[in-house]
Amino acid sequence: MKRRAALVGALSGGAVVLWAAPVSAQDITAEAVQASLDNTFVLIAAVLVIFMQAGFALLEAGFTRAKSVANIMMKNLMDFMAGVLAFFAVGYAIAFGTGNDFLGYKGFFLGSGAADYTSGLTVDVFVFFVFQLAFAATAATIVSGAMAERTKFKSYFVYSLLITGFIYPVVVHWLWGGGWLAQRGTVPIDFAGSTIVHATGGVAALMGAIALGPRIGKFGPDGRPRTIQGHSIPFAVLGTFILLVGWYGFNPGSYLAADGPALGAIATTTTLAAGAGAVMAMLVAWWTTHGKADVGMAANGALAGLVGITAGCFAVSTIGALIIGAICGCAVVGSVWFFDRVKVDDPVGAISVHGTCGILGTLLVGFLAAGNADDAGVFYGGGADQLISQIVLVVSVVAWVAVTSGILFFVIKRTIGLRVSEDEEHEGLDRIEHGSRGYNPEIYTADFVLEAEDELVPVGVSVGGS
Amino acid sequence: MKRRAALVGALSGGAVVLWAAPVSAQDITAEAVQASLDNTFVLIAAVLVIFMQAGFALLEAGFTRAKSVANIMMKNLMDFMAGVLAFFAVGYAIAFGTGNDFLGYKGFFLGSGAADYTSGLTVDVFVFFVFQLAFAATAATIVSGAMAERTKFKSYFVYSLLITGFIYPVVVHWLWGGGWLAQRGTVPIDFAGSTIVHATGGVAALMGAIALGPRIGKFGPDGRPRTIQGHSIPFAVLGTFILLVGWYGFNPGSYLAADGPALGAIATTTTLAAGAGAVMAMLVAWWTTHGKADVGMAANGALAGLVGITAGCFAVSTIGALIIGAICGCAVVGSVWFFDRVKVDDPVGAISVHGTCGILGTLLVGFLAAGNADDAGVFYGGGADQLISQIVLVVSVVAWVAVTSGILFFVIKRTIGLRVSEDEEHEGLDRIEHGSRGYNPEIYTADFVLEAEDELVPVGVSVGGS
Amino acid sequence: MKRRAALVGALSGGAVVLWAAPVSAQDITAEAVQASLDNTFVLIAAVLVIFMQAGFALLEAGFTRAKSVANIMMKNLMDFMAGVLAFFAVGYAIAFGTGNDFLGYKGFFLGSGAADYTSGLTVDVFVFFVFQLAFAATAATIVSGAMAERTKFKSYFVYSLLITGFIYPVVVHWLWGGGWLAQRGTVPIDFAGSTIVHATGGVAALMGAIALGPRIGKFGPDGRPRTIQGHSIPFAVLGTFILLVGWYGFNPGSYLAADGPALGAIATTTTLAAGAGAVMAMLVAWWTTHGKADVGMAANGALAGLVGITAGCFAVSTIGALIIGAICGCAVVGSVWFFDRVKVDDPVGAISVHGTCGILGTLLVGFLAAGNADDAGVFYGGGADQLISQIVLVVSVVAWVAVTSGILFFVIKRTIGLRVSEDEEHEGLDRIEHGSRGYNPEIYTADFVLEAEDELVPVGVSVGGS
Repeated sequence: MKRRAALVGALSGGAVVLWAAPVSAQDITAEAVQASLDNTFVLIAAVLVIFMQAGFALLEAGFTRAKSVANIMMKNLMDFMAGVLAFFAVGYAIAFGTGNDFLGYKGFFLGSGAADYTSGLTVDVFVFFVFQLAFAATAATIVSGAMAERTKFKSYFVYSLLITGFIYPVVVHWLWGGGWLAQRGTVPIDFAGSTIVHATGGVAALMGAIALGPRIGKFGPDGRPRTIQGHSIPFAVLGTFILLVGWYGFNPGSYLAADGPALGAIATTTTLAAGAGAVMAMLVAWWTTHGKADVGMAANGALAGLVGITAGCFAVSTIGALIIGAICGCAVVGSVWFFDRVKVDDPVGAISVHGTCGILGTLLVGFLAAGNADDAGVFYGGGADQLISQIVLVVSVVAWVAVTSGILFFVIKRTIGLRVSEDEEHEGLDRIEHGSRGYNPEIYTADFVLEAEDELVPVGVSVGGS
Repeated sequence: MKRRAALVGALSGGAVVLWAAPVSAQDITAEAVQASLDNTFVLIAAVLVIFMQAGFALLEAGFTRAKSVANIMMKNLMDFMAGVLAFFAVGYAIAFGTGNDFLGYKGFFLGSGAADYTSGLTVDVFVFFVFQLAFAATAATIVSGAMAERTKFKSYFVYSLLITGFIYPVVVHWLWGGGWLAQRGTVPIDFAGSTIVHATGGVAALMGAIALGPRIGKFGPDGRPRTIQGHSIPFAVLGTFILLVGWYGFNPGSYLAADGPALGAIATTTTLAAGAGAVMAMLVAWWTTHGKADVGMAANGALAGLVGITAGCFAVSTIGALIIGAICGCAVVGSVWFFDRVKVDDPVGAISVHGTCGILGTLLVGFLAAGNADDAGVFYGGGADQLISQIVLVVSVVAWVAVTSGILFFVIKRTIGLRVSEDEEHEGLDRIEHGSRGYNPEIYTADFVLEAEDELVPVGVSVGGS
Repeated sequence: MKRRAALVGALSGGAVVLWAAPVSAQDITAEAVQASLDNTFVLIAAVLVIFMQAGFALLEAGFTRAKSVANIMMKNLMDFMAGVLAFFAVGYAIAFGTGNDFLGYKGFFLGSGAADYTSGLTVDVFVFFVFQLAFAATAATIVSGAMAERTKFKSYFVYSLLITGFIYPVVVHWLWGGGWLAQRGTVPIDFAGSTIVHATGGVAALMGAIALGPRIGKFGPDGRPRTIQGHSIPFAVLGTFILLVGWYGFNPGSYLAADGPALGAIATTTTLAAGAGAVMAMLVAWWTTHGKADVGMAANGALAGLVGITAGCFAVSTIGALIIGAICGCAVVGSVWFFDRVKVDDPVGAISVHGTCGILGTLLVGFLAAGNADDAGVFYGGGADQLISQIVLVVSVVAWVAVTSGILFFVIKRTIGLRVSEDEEHEGLDRIEHGSRGYNPEIYTADFVLEAEDELVPVGVSVGGS
């Protein structure tokens, strides 16, 4: 397209330096503009998904104790930052590079073969990379919550890289990358990744939580689960809002193009499912147990609805979205109850929100898909074909992730070790893993005055908070 | 266009599954692309407005006490989540469904009649729904601040649904939905809702605060108002920044189309008014009372400017925007002072920011509208027509909201009760309404060690923070 | 363009009031739609950059002590709010108005001459103004961090206005505004402002920190630097995430047009540099000093990578981006060490992140620019021309900012004074500068009960938190 040529030309010498210069317009076509729009939209969607990292960090921090809050923020920061490198180096190639039915093996470092996948799309390979990178980071960060307050940072760093760089990309290749799942007669529907992203994260989280064992004090001498309250509801709810905002990039962005009615439909089903999930989770927790409007459950209910609708957000009707949201909102409460009973300690409910509701949302598409005969669900006259396909998707992904992440956690446990010492867990992970506390309460008061000079530790390199 | 055809092919059996959709490509026209752009922009604007929910939550939390912070976050979470359902079920139909001059009555559940309003626009009905939903949630959430720290959650939940589902949609229908106000000779100008959204919220907030009465301790034995300091300036200012960001969806998005000069003008007037409001509020508070640069007043001044410019952001010049912002920045200080004097306890200043400045901003358009003769304001040679129309708008909306929300609060007070018990108010609402505290300070320190096992309450369902 | 005319026509009388109406389509051209898209994208990018203000505020708050947190939030709020007015009144005209090689002098108050610069672009002058305003506010707010915890608010307010309104705009004019740097044979490459924005802020920060002197207690009796820990790692990391998100507006938005491949390339180099910076800073700090995964260094490393890539994000390859990020990630650790050694107290590392890495990133483009012969870097066969041009850019900007901001701080110091009293610094700035504390810890516990009425200070005007 000449426009771009002109712009790149401008790059080399114009007075306005690298900035866009006036372009001769005669060959700007409507298709070319639509392609620019598609790219712009997908990039903005990617930014919204990247913002979700902040949401995950705050949700996890809010639902856990202050004594490990620096560790939690660091994990969420670094699984994105290091994940960038892993996904660039290998993950993208495995997911979307040319390869076989099982995985891709071209396009490492965004080199030759990286653009094969996008050659038929309007979306540029770099835009697509950033969007997919944001998804990979999401899958990895889900695990962090379930393993909070007792995992060695070094170990977290290692497995986070392997999930982003290998375990998750293989799953992506199977369906979105054109692998074996995409070649079935009836292709499974997982529009934005209830299973591919969320259940992958949720199952790895489950394996991690099992490998670690529960936090000290989580189960009483009688074996009954106890609530270990988090330290900041404001952080948890702010995190929920940020995740909600990010989901408008996650789901509509997965359309990979900018088309009003499609984006509107996706945004609407997404919103309705969140609402139904939050309200149902609040009511179920109210009626069954708490007798009160539980904030944590309402937040997790909203996220449960969002996770659930992610597979079918462009396949179900508004009523279908409400049903999926409502079922997931109920299910998350039951699932949290269940994992407490089987002694899996998941401090933030990540296994239930992303694992249980990811799987549930994917299967429900088999019933509620409202498309044409080919992919309609059971309730819409499409027979069982789509449902079977959804089951195949779920079973194969769960099996893959359970086995690979199980092996991964086992190996880490036997080598560098997975869990911190009992003393460190009592104290909180911040000082020993990161050399600083997350909060410095003695300086919370305005009356605090610097006194003894030895209060300030001399160090080599010093910057605020470090 | 081949692109989309290819994608559709891919959809029904191919590698890319459900991504992208039906459109034959030969008929991609420039108009169609502009329509896609309009939709994409309005959807992104809607996301920014939805993000404002986080801003309102933080602002309100920051300006109130820690002992009710979980309650505040929960209210802000649920008025969006439940509001989604109410606006989907009935609110949208009342606002934009086909109907009479007073309200719409078609399009419930986004069914038949929902798309009538958008049939002449480029914006798709689903995109429009999400955008309007975000506005409805804004109107409802404003009330929360003025009624903070003493309202039963159950009662809040009920009236929040009724504002989102009925009181606000009727107001919308009158003007934006083509009702009686839109049919006046000189149509009132309320571009993005200084009156329709903000004054509606502000007046309902006033009625709620009156119905509740002041917080314990707000007024001394001598009747003089006392400052009850909030617990977190960082939250309040972060909330202000998020609201500012959201306003770039609120105002430019209300153009409902993507046109550079228009969006640029709207964004510019919006920004200037915020700046003028913040600076003036800071200076006025400095000069008249505090003798210092008050943070709360500066933040509320910025919001006052933003609320004020919302009506006229596409009708006034840059100078007009500065004037509106400056006047609202002064007015918010005076209004806070006034409501303190008449013993209305508004913990966050919501009545002043949204009510007073919403009304003021709307009226000022009658003076400062810089359009052509038909709708120019008094200062721009347009005579009094536009001003009169603005007054009619304000008076009718204020009357409607005052009467209906007054009745609503009265009925709630006489039935389920509006206010928590004195003991609960002393303790804070978090434990009794929600079963958990917003913060858990004993675990703020890194030195904290889990000790007695009975510190951890055994419960049925447990998730972090719940 | 008729579309706009129709819209403005609709403004004056239609039933939908000011909202966009259907437009007769026959004269919508593809170019016009592309222009609308360009504007929409740049406006959204501007919003992302404005959001960075919240990121800077949180980063600075998190890395400093709670006793001055209200002051820090207020500074960050007001340097944007007042900066809006200064940039509108004079800054924009100096930067982009018609003028001479040194500065512009037309277009004050966005009046006559303001649109000259954009006359050849597709971007509307108002959209361009908002985008550039966001950049100006960024340059100003960088200074705040280095001068934290000991600067008079009044003095901060004054110099902040002068940076936004004069010092920074002159720099902008030299290169982006078509001034003398833009007229060199080989134009310096500073795509989004590693030097123009970040080094400007960083050098002013250095001058400010020198003029102020270190905080009480920063250096021991033996002169050795001591760590003064910040009060909230969650705030610092949340701030980092928000800054990352904002950078996707900062860098891609600087393209000033919406073109898929270009935006994708810019977003990709930006992301890779952030990842490399964070990982390298973490590792270097781990290896050299801390022996642990330092959170503050990882966050500053991510920002260092982002600052470094800002100049060359559209000029270097993916490998170049990794190199720049990695070098800046190492450099920020060394730079923090260095400024501690020379007794410059920079509480948040702003001088190192924005100054050192801004300069470094700019110079590295001279080696790593991968363009055609004209502007290729040393390592890409382009000879030393580009490198020399980069050096000229850096030296001239550093000299200008050091001299002007040095004079500014000197004059302020001799007149209104720059630093608060020793007592005030001990106590924290919040009460004396702003009349309120940033936190109210005694009301953090749910058990807190309002007791003595004299705890509540009667004041004239009261709003939450003020």
